[in-house]
Parts: sequence; C-alpha cells; structure tokens
Amino acid sequence: KKNYRIAVLPGDGIGPEIMQEAVKVLTLVGELEGVTFTCEEGRIGGIAIDTDGTPLPEETVTLAKQADAVLLGAVGGPKWDQNPGHLRPETGLLGIRKALGLFANIRPATMHSSLVDASTLKPEVVSGVDLIVVRELTGGIYFGEKKRYDGPNGEVAEDQCIYHEAEVERIIRVGFDIARKRQKRLVSVDKANVLESSRLWRKVAERVAADYPDVELSHQLVDSCAMQLVREPKQFDVIVTENMFGDILSDQAAMLTGSIGMLSSASLAAGSFGLYEPVHGSAPDIAGKGIANPLATILSVAMMLRLSLGMDEAAAAVENAVWSVLEAGHRTGDIAADRSKAIGTIEMGQLVRDEL
Amino acid sequence: KKNYRIAVLPGDGIGPEIMQEAVKVLTLVGELEGVTFTCEEGRIGGIAIDTDGTPLPEETVTLAKQADAVLLGAVGGPKWDQNPGHLRPETGLLGIRKALGLFANIRPATMHSSLVDASTLKPEVVSGVDLIVVRELTGGIYFGEKKRYDGPNGEVAEDQCIYHEAEVERIIRVGFDIARKRQKRLVSVDKANVLESSRLWRKVAERVAADYPDVELSHQLVDSCAMQLVREPKQFDVIVTENMFGDILSDQAAMLTGSIGMLSSASLAAGSFGLYEPVHGSAPDIAGKGIANPLATILSVAMMLRLSLGMDEAAAAVENAVWSVLEAGHRTGDIAADRSKAIGTIEMGQLVRDEL
Ligand SMILES: CC(C)[C@H](C(=O)O)[C@@H](O)C(=O)O
Ligand SMILES: CC(C)[C@H](C(=O)O)[C@@H](O)C(=O)O
Repeated sequence: KKNYRIAVLPGDGIGPEIMQEAVKVLTLVGELEGVTFTCEEGRIGGIAIDTDGTPLPEETVTLAKQADAVLLGAVGGPKWDQNPGHLRPETGLLGIRKALGLFANIRPATMHSSLVDASTLKPEVVSGVDLIVVRELTGGIYFGEKKRYDGPNGEVAEDQCIYHEAEVERIIRVGFDIARKRQKRLVSVDKANVLESSRLWRKVAERVAADYPDVELSHQLVDSCAMQLVREPKQFDVIVTENMFGDILSDQAAMLTGSIGMLSSASLAAGSFGLYEPVHGSAPDIAGKGIANPLATILSVAMMLRLSLGMDEAAAAVENAVWSVLEAGHRTGDIAADRSKAIGTIEMGQLVRDEL
Repeated sequence: KKNYRIAVLPGDGIGPEIMQEAVKVLTLVGELEGVTFTCEEGRIGGIAIDTDGTPLPEETVTLAKQADAVLLGAVGGPKWDQNPGHLRPETGLLGIRKALGLFANIRPATMHSSLVDASTLKPEVVSGVDLIVVRELTGGIYFGEKKRYDGPNGEVAEDQCIYHEAEVERIIRVGFDIARKRQKRLVSVDKANVLESSRLWRKVAERVAADYPDVELSHQLVDSCAMQLVREPKQFDVIVTENMFGDILSDQAAMLTGSIGMLSSASLAAGSFGLYEPVHGSAPDIAGKGIANPLATILSVAMMLRLSLGMDEAAAAVENAVWSVLEAGHRTGDIAADRSKAIGTIEMGQLVRDEL
C-alpha cells in the first residue's frame, strides 16, 4: 500500500480549524484510493514564535523536507503585529519558501458559476474567468540585499531587486508548461520600459518561447496588466511574473472573483515537491468560532493530490465534491448571500466528505 | 493684464488632436478671466526622437522651466517600440519628471454619475467613487542604480530601490495636505513586512502624522490595497504611495471607473509648478481620425488652473462645463454606449466651450 508523508502546518487564527477539515478529506481520499497519508504536524508563524521563539523552527523545516508535500493553514495575528522582523509570523512564510526552494507560486483565480454574485464586478465580466497567476517566489526584491543607514538628508533605505537568468528561466518554463496544458496563452508581465530586471525577464521569456511553439506568448507591462484585470479578466489564461508584481496581481485577480475563501495556491520546488495553502489569511477576528470556510484548504488538498502526488482523478473528485456542495446551495458565512442560513466549518467539511 | 506662460507638449499619436482642443479651452478661459496664456509648443517623445534624435531635447526642458506650468498630450507608438532605451518615448517622460523635479503625481479616480455604466464593476460598488492616488514620482526603483552583468548562471540584472527620508517626507506631506482638504482620510500604502524602504516609508508617515492631527492615517500593504480597490473602492479618500506601487495602483484605480478617457493627472514640483496630462496613452490606432476623447486633456487644463495658477473658480467652471456636456448625453466613441451616435474630438471640444 502506497504511503505518502504529508507535513501539516496549521499555523494561527482559523488555520487549525480549517486544516482539520482538510485532513479529514485527505484521510477519506486515502481510504477511497487505497493509499495512506501519514500526516505529521509542525509549527509555523505565531504559534511557533510563542512556543519555539522563532516563526520557523528548524524542526519544521526538517519535517517538511522529509515529507512528500506540505499543507499550510495560515499565519499571523494582531498578537505578533508589533514584533521586530525576525519574530514576525510572515518571516516564517518567507523562510520556508526559501528553505524548501519553493520558487513557483501557482495562484488560480477561477470564478465558479454558482458564486458569480459574490464578485463586485458585473456577472458578464467575471463569469467564466479562469486564470492562473504564476509568481516567482524566491527571488527579486523580496530576497535582495536590504540596507538602512544615515545619509545627509536623514535615513536612507535600500532594497535590491536582483534576478539571475537561470531563476527567470525556470519560472518562465513553469508558466509555459502550465499554459500548454490549458488554453496555450501565456502573458509575461514586467516593467521592461523602466527596470533592468524586467528587460532580462523579457529577453529570457522570448528565448524560452522558442521551445514552446504551440503556446502564444505576449508581454504586458505591470500597470497595464492591473488595468486589464479589471477591464477584461477573461482575456487571461496564464500570467507569469516576478515576485513583487505577482504578489500584487495575484491578490487583485483573486479579489475579482469575490470569494477569497474559495481560492487555493501551490508553491512548488523543482521536481514534484510543493507546499499548498489557502489564499486567505488567518482571520483572527473569527478564529475559534467554527464559522471559517474550509473550502480553500480542501481545494489546496486537491492541488496537492494533482501536482505533488500525481493523483489526478482523486484531485478532480475532491474538486467536484466541493462544486456539488456549492451547487446544492450550502454556504459558509463569507460566501453566503443570506448569512442567517450559513453553515459552519465542520458541517461544510462533512458535506464535502459526504459528496466524496 | 496677467500673463501666464504655458509650455505645451502635444507629443505623439492622438496627442496633437486632443491638445488642440485643450488649448482652445484654455484660450477661452483667458478671455473670460481677463488673463492671457502664452502657449509655447515643445517636442517630447517619438516626435522629438524623429526631429531631434532624443526623446527630450534640451530646448524642451528649457521651455518648460521658463513656463508657469506644462501641458502634455501623450507619448509613444509602435514606431519607436523597438528602439534602445535612450531612444524611447517614455524615456522622455521619465527625463522631464526628473529634470523638473516633479516628485508628486496626483491621480484622481472619480466616477462621474452619468458614466457609471462604463465601469466593469457593479454600479453600487463604483458609484460615488472619488479617490486620489498620490504617487511619488522621482525616486524608488525607477531611478535607483541599474546593473546588468554576466554571472555563473547566465546574465544577472539588478535594480536598486532607494528612498531618502526627505524624499519620503515631502510626498507624505503632499498626501496629508490633499487629504486635509477632502475627507481627511489618508491611506499610506507600502510593503513594510518585506521591504526596508517600506519600513522607512511607514516610519516617516507615522512621524509626519503628528503634524496633521485632523487627518486619519492608516497603513495598507500593497497587495491588500490592490484587493480593497476591487472589493470596496469607496473606502478610499487619498492614497499615498511610492513610485512603483503608485504606477500599478493608480492605473488599477483609474480602470475601476471604466472611463480612462476622462481622467487627468498632475505631476507637481515643490512650489506651484506642475505638469498636467491625461492618464490615457497616445492611442496610435485612432490617431489622426478625429475621434479621440479630448476631455481628459481639458480636465488637465482645469487641474492646472487650480493647482499651478490658483484659478480655482475657472477650474471649477471648466469641470462643470465638462460634466454638463456629459449629462446632456454627448459622448466620444470610447465612452459611448452606442458608438453610432459618438461625436468627434473637435465637436466635443466645441461643446465644452459652448458650455463655458
Ligand atoms: C505575508 C507576505 C510576506 C506574503 C508575500 O508578500 O509574499 C503574502 O502577501 C503572500 O502573498 O503570500
Ligand atoms: C511610461 C512609463 C515609464 C510611465 C511610468 O511607469 O511611470 C507610465 O506608466 C506612467 O504611469 O506615467
């Protein structure tokens, strides 16, 4: 019987509640598919700061490295907001990306037909939106050298945005590979009219394009892309971009759907290893109330099954179970038109398992 | 009789057509107000590349420096798209910002009630949107040192994002000053959880806030702001942010209104000097056809009257004339629901002057 080791990092806020439902779904998938998932828990973020004195204990990195894939809940909360940089939950997130070499962040923004009303955009503009932002996750201005010093006009602060050709090439290839399996349209986003790193980016994209004659490559400037996402989001199939631009555009794209509680993401290393997490945050305001939406985390399980474990059919089954539950009209508070009819986290998880 | 010197830089594409209408409006304002505007034309962008071999001739800089304010049309077009950096139209734009010290870019995004349908967002989400993005325009990653060299893994490219405390302070003050005259709510946007320059930015914003106890300051991370602009744009009064984030967010905010052909912008230096231009580009596809919308350029004239020349009433009169024309149902093609009824550039300009 095949056994997979999954590192489970629930994190803070609603993290533990939603993760519980996701793990139950995963366990059921194991029973149905005749494989076992050995889930081992680790700490990251605020809980790790409190327990281990660091947002990313060495133990957690080791656990993750020994696993076949990682499931993450969410990190952060007001308790740690005033901490110095090295004691902040998100430093754990940046740290694990770097430690595990998770250079490719895959952020689908899909408008599910039964949730069209949740969007602030007109139905005819968003219905049918199905795009993926591929964001470079371990380079650029996030990880370049930082400086702070006193100058003649007060303090000076510097951030270096640096990209190596090989770093750009591998993420561009991820973009092309994903586009190839979809509508074969890749938009590479940069600011080549201003940034040197963007000029290198564009040059590499052009070069790599020769290996993908079946995929149509076009370039958009980041400001223009931010406009186009609002004007006509349906024009996009796959967007590939650098770390900082991807941070902004993937969140903007997510919000177009209006249901951030439904969106999952993958952060992939070379090979099949990856970390999977919902796009939404730790929502400290509703933590512990049992009302958080577990669907994005459950859909993260589906992404993991597909992208790290090669279990395409099981992934599709989980996704279909989620859509069926939604189509039957069940909603958690965040996506309910009528909040008085909203169901809780555990109930939603159970409904998905019933469908499965 | 008071005389103002205005440097007029029509630029490329539809630039000359729309500028012609704006200058006619300005001339009429002069007659009505009993002042003269001496408009002197200069070249910038593609036309300057063709004529002078540089996108920003020294002559144009001198002309602008001697003027009380600058009106700019638009620059760029496919003809110059493949040129090397120093021979590209937008290099002229970046150059004039730096040469004239235009550090504060003011980008209003206002949803005019008669154009609500043009937005891709639901009417209840966008009607009443009235926000201003204040973007730092002469610092940050745009003007930091750039490097390109060969490394062990192919080429390497670097862009330095650098901010001095004094640079941050002056733009933050512009944000507070503008908010003070409006709803007194300022959102400072940064990425303080990752960038050193953002941590300096936030620190300065906090310090300067002490001088504006009547204005409510809050902070948003740039990814979160990109989401909030989609989710609930009405929450914003004034946003202040650094150059690169401002480039993206101001364009995103502009597109929320759906009528980019209506939006104007100011780029201000210390004191009252400023450069005024429409937000839209040079639209080479419709250049010379006489169908471009001149209203954003005419509204740029209004901004100039108010911000550089202290002619508040004349500014309001121009703006009201524009709104009246729109309310009477007149539309150029870009904002027309029924394109067959669209009017041309000259006709639209004439209608505004008739109202005035
Ligand atoms: C928390 C923060 C450092 C992080 C990022 O900017 O990458 C987050 O916004 C994300 O997108 O995962
Ligand atoms: C043309 C380009 C260099 C410019 C910028 O990025 O500043 C433009 O996008 C703008 O916003 O005025």
